[in-house]
Amino acid sequence: MRAGIIGATGYTGVELVKIIARHSHLELSVITSESYAGKPFSEIYPLMQGVCDMILVENDLEEVSKKADVFFLCLPHKTAMESAKFLYEKGKIVIDLSADFRIKDKNIYEEVYGTDHTASHLLEKAVYGQAEIYTKEIQKTSLIAGAGCYPTSIITPLYPLLESGLIDDNSFIIADSKSGVSGAGRKPSLTNIFCEANEDLKPYGIFSHRHNSEIDFILSEAQKNTHVIFTPHLLPVNRGILSTIYFKTKAGKDELENTIKEKYKGRYFVRIKNTIPAIRYVANTNFIDIAVYKKDDTAIIVSAIDNLLKGASGQAVQCFNIMQNIEETTGLI
Amino acid sequence: MRAGIIGATGYTGVELVKIIARHSHLELSVITSESYAGKPFSEIYPLMQGVCDMILVENDLEEVSKKADVFFLCLPHKTAMESAKFLYEKGKIVIDLSADFRIKDKNIYEEVYGTDHTASHLLEKAVYGQAEIYTKEIQKTSLIAGAGCYPTSIITPLYPLLESGLIDDNSFIIADSKSGVSGAGRKPSLTNIFCEANEDLKPYGIFSHRHNSEIDFILSEAQKNTHVIFTPHLLPVNRGILSTIYFKTKAGKDELENTIKEKYKGRYFVRIKNTIPAIRYVANTNFIDIAVYKKDDTAIIVSAIDNLLKGASGQAVQCFNIMQNIEETTGLI
Amino acid sequence: MRAGIIGATGYTGVELVKIIARHSHLELSVITSESYAGKPFSEIYPLMQGVCDMILVENDLEEVSKKADVFFLCLPHKTAMESAKFLYEKGKIVIDLSADFRIKDKNIYEEVYGTDHTASHLLEKAVYGQAEIYTKEIQKTSLIAGAGCYPTSIITPLYPLLESGLIDDNSFIIADSKSGVSGAGRKPSLTNIFCEANEDLKPYGIFSHRHNSEIDFILSEAQKNTHVIFTPHLLPVNRGILSTIYFKTKAGKDELENTIKEKYKGRYFVRIKNTIPAIRYVANTNFIDIAVYKKDDTAIIVSAIDNLLKGASGQAVQCFNIMQNIEETTGLI
Amino acid sequence: MRAGIIGATGYTGVELVKIIARHSHLELSVITSESYAGKPFSEIYPLMQGVCDMILVENDLEEVSKKADVFFLCLPHKTAMESAKFLYEKGKIVIDLSADFRIKDKNIYEEVYGTDHTASHLLEKAVYGQAEIYTKEIQKTSLIAGAGCYPTSIITPLYPLLESGLIDDNSFIIADSKSGVSGAGRKPSLTNIFCEANEDLKPYGIFSHRHNSEIDFILSEAQKNTHVIFTPHLLPVNRGILSTIYFKTKAGKDELENTIKEKYKGRYFVRIKNTIPAIRYVANTNFIDIAVYKKDDTAIIVSAIDNLLKGASGQAVQCFNIMQNIEETTGLI
Repeated sequence: MRAGIIGATGYTGVELVKIIARHSHLELSVITSESYAGKPFSEIYPLMQGVCDMILVENDLEEVSKKADVFFLCLPHKTAMESAKFLYEKGKIVIDLSADFRIKDKNIYEEVYGTDHTASHLLEKAVYGQAEIYTKEIQKTSLIAGAGCYPTSIITPLYPLLESGLIDDNSFIIADSKSGVSGAGRKPSLTNIFCEANEDLKPYGIFSHRHNSEIDFILSEAQKNTHVIFTPHLLPVNRGILSTIYFKTKAGKDELENTIKEKYKGRYFVRIKNTIPAIRYVANTNFIDIAVYKKDDTAIIVSAIDNLLKGASGQAVQCFNIMQNIEETTGLI
Repeated sequence: MRAGIIGATGYTGVELVKIIARHSHLELSVITSESYAGKPFSEIYPLMQGVCDMILVENDLEEVSKKADVFFLCLPHKTAMESAKFLYEKGKIVIDLSADFRIKDKNIYEEVYGTDHTASHLLEKAVYGQAEIYTKEIQKTSLIAGAGCYPTSIITPLYPLLESGLIDDNSFIIADSKSGVSGAGRKPSLTNIFCEANEDLKPYGIFSHRHNSEIDFILSEAQKNTHVIFTPHLLPVNRGILSTIYFKTKAGKDELENTIKEKYKGRYFVRIKNTIPAIRYVANTNFIDIAVYKKDDTAIIVSAIDNLLKGASGQAVQCFNIMQNIEETTGLI
Repeated sequence: MRAGIIGATGYTGVELVKIIARHSHLELSVITSESYAGKPFSEIYPLMQGVCDMILVENDLEEVSKKADVFFLCLPHKTAMESAKFLYEKGKIVIDLSADFRIKDKNIYEEVYGTDHTASHLLEKAVYGQAEIYTKEIQKTSLIAGAGCYPTSIITPLYPLLESGLIDDNSFIIADSKSGVSGAGRKPSLTNIFCEANEDLKPYGIFSHRHNSEIDFILSEAQKNTHVIFTPHLLPVNRGILSTIYFKTKAGKDELENTIKEKYKGRYFVRIKNTIPAIRYVANTNFIDIAVYKKDDTAIIVSAIDNLLKGASGQAVQCFNIMQNIEETTGLI
Repeated sequence: MRAGIIGATGYTGVELVKIIARHSHLELSVITSESYAGKPFSEIYPLMQGVCDMILVENDLEEVSKKADVFFLCLPHKTAMESAKFLYEKGKIVIDLSADFRIKDKNIYEEVYGTDHTASHLLEKAVYGQAEIYTKEIQKTSLIAGAGCYPTSIITPLYPLLESGLIDDNSFIIADSKSGVSGAGRKPSLTNIFCEANEDLKPYGIFSHRHNSEIDFILSEAQKNTHVIFTPHLLPVNRGILSTIYFKTKAGKDELENTIKEKYKGRYFVRIKNTIPAIRYVANTNFIDIAVYKKDDTAIIVSAIDNLLKGASGQAVQCFNIMQNIEETTGLI
């Protein structure tokens, strides 16, 4: 199947190029870029010389749409929804890595992202791309709203627990998350230059990060009115997210652990650990590592992912694999 | 005044050497080391060549005690208590950077540290070395139990709030802390080698870190039976601790902030920020930066310190300054 | 074909495990460790959980030899030669990643490594494992002396130039090399702990690094009496080597570049670049990137490799592929 | 004496602010910024809260010139020469950290920097700010051309050797230099963002870096027609430069070392080492560490500095101290 990547030169784009290069069911047929059209991909990413020297083309969707069957959209929100609509209506499979179709409530979306949703009729068609939770829905759709990176690390362990009613107060769950700098994208700014991020750690978006709405929206599908107090931190590593999650519960460690295990039974990329998860154990993989701790009435869950793989491009391809009914690990190990 | 450092070649030792070198009231007169006795300090720390080339001597306390008036002890716990006792009983000023005199309840100490306390009669004489909270007591003592690094970052903002009864449930306060690798000391191990710590983040000591007892013990002096759920993380930076603290409260942001401000009024090293604290804003300084956030009934406090300065050697000298009734910033700016 | 790894828990071992896991012609059948025998590999490397949970066994060569057809030796020098001899004489294919069979002159070896060579009769059978230079010899041997990491980065570009007599003074070639900390191995020491390596750069082994003899020995096969002035530096990154090489030459940039290109024509893993090589362009790949610069009578060559892949485990498998007459990229892309 | 900093918000600016804050003969009286005028300095650098909360003002030189006696210029080249001229002609002491007055040959300057020199009549008044070489000239001038960072690390050890004619071929000296990312300034670009610089090393400006002309120009004052082959590399650390320098010589190690020692006898900030220099031994100090190695007819010199201190702001203040005939270490230790 021919694959296209719209907006291929960001960090999620290059990961997709790498995955597709070794994917037995996908052939990369078109890659686009606003800034670098006309240049070979390997000029932007010299590490790809000899692996992908394909020329980047402009984002002319009419033209581009002829060249592939499945499209991965690596675009900023708002731009993404327009491209998704166009391609979806051409009958293409669309896997959108932006936030545009993640929150199915148009009003919440518009408030959080401060923009009109101009393709809101597609919200009900889109399936949230957490691959292990929405597996059945993914099999039937051709529009994926790729799950956010922070949300993947938080939703995956909490969803089954909320579903089972094991969390005492589902409006006082704390998720203290730490993300590598690639999460801030490739656009230079004072926040992501080396000397300002190196040898540092700082929280940001306290009480106000957009992913909080996504987390709450999806987790409320497991248990109504769930609210997570979510604090992201910028961590001086290239890639990876670690979330430390705290809540009160009457359930024991085993019950919590078994509930998660049961939910994800047989799923290759979810690893329930009996040792402490760490970013370096999941970096450059599509795994999510989860461990459960309990003392008195407090539970701590630690989860770790690679923000660009399980948190973006890896899970996007995993969703594609599920959709195509092929081995979900194809191209990902 | 002549100053000695017992166990001078660890990371807290070298910071003390640097501070004393520019301290107008202290002159370094003796430095000891078990492993490096006979060598110049600058051979162990080449950065100190020309600054401190003093020869390290053995830990022969009888001999060493003659050579200084104030002693900073940078020793492992247990060894520290013996040395502290010896020097204290010789009439020396003792500033112990170990954990041996921090918890004044002998039983708790012995349980947490798994060893007998052989100088427990000094526990009541020792003053906990959080310089801004125990200022008056510090002025009157000659035995300081230097405050722990993590505890300093957590106790400093929480103490006044607990004292004022502003925290709803003082047994469900969450402190998610991240520390640079120097906190693990200079002894090589699989935990602190570069390739295992770099590009990584991981929690450790979940529900079981020794500093948790120290935090709870001291904060219970502000409000009885306080319990903090404390999770330390190993962060790939050389120095610095950032703690993100969560609790429920009916108080507003202003009340919380003002309570802390009032407590530390006029104290140079406590900065209440209206921007987000970060490790790089306090690294290589003796400051503690604190910011308060509030939404619905949840408060978040972010604090940051340099673990080797405000969290160890800097605060130790600050205590000495207070004790001597000189400017508390002497040698520290 | 069944593959065994002797000494599997170092950094080259884990890379071999990863490569073999995706190699279509190799199946991992036995892994050994002196320190961790009896434990699952994924306990030592939690990132491998679900990928390789095989139990490590002791280095009992008699037993182990029955379990595989090809053996990769990740052992310290001296120990390696004994194991290589044993396995080779059992008719096994042996790919030794130590230095024991790289220098074919027993006397030089013994002087440089300060130990007797107790398998010196095998020196003439062993082929130096720079895969693109010794291709024909590799096809015919069953004993590979895996090329050193620094040497690979220096020999690969210089060999063809020396062969063609393009370097003016082959006893005054300067190779200023910088290596990531994984090159120092996984054994904790004051050199490789985080706080001593991070935020630092320092040379070591000036005029005296063992790899210098290997470099000179191999390059002297291209042109007699070649001597490289080689200075390694410890670089605060996990993996990668970059070498900046300087020499005088009358040849122009094109002639130098074309000579290298011609030598490695059709070889996938050698990339002659027209942009500046960098460690991040080759990290986690088996590529060697090379670029040539010329001004007046001075040439500068910059080369970059991943020290654990092209500089060790990747090239070892590449040699195996060549030996087996299969696609040389198998398992490596 | 009142000190002003023009362009105070870059990395050299903040170092100057820190130094002046503890300098007994200087009082910071005015700081300017094009981008941040009207804001307190500590808003741009939160680490300075409580240390320097002075308000930044616009670069209105007429106004600004009234407010200080000595001016440190942290401006891009070209802009710097205009400001220097204005302030110098007002009778101010001017210490310019740009490249504008370093190369006294107008033609070379104009070729290298691609711009007219509009204050070339001041070239002969300006003194090159390598503090240990041009000490006497510095004492008599009121216009300093602050030495470049790379040049300081290379010129300091080589100058006395060239002066003494100890280098065999002074047109084939190789300086392989590695600099921390702060050398690239604080302006965000694809080169200096975290994910592109971290876990990497790459050379740049091969055969073409502007500092090469500065190095050659100054060293040719020691010995005519000196030419250094200079290759800078971008190193993933915040601060520091290490240069590894190679040349042929008939002189022995002792002669080389003694020549350097003799030249810098009694100078606090030059340390001739008998151990290997490293970036972490000089970071956050004004020292330059130098070590000499010799084998056969090749010498290797390793030097290390902090690029922002000895390579910029520290040496600038050192020059000021010399000029004022006060202790040269004032404010710098």
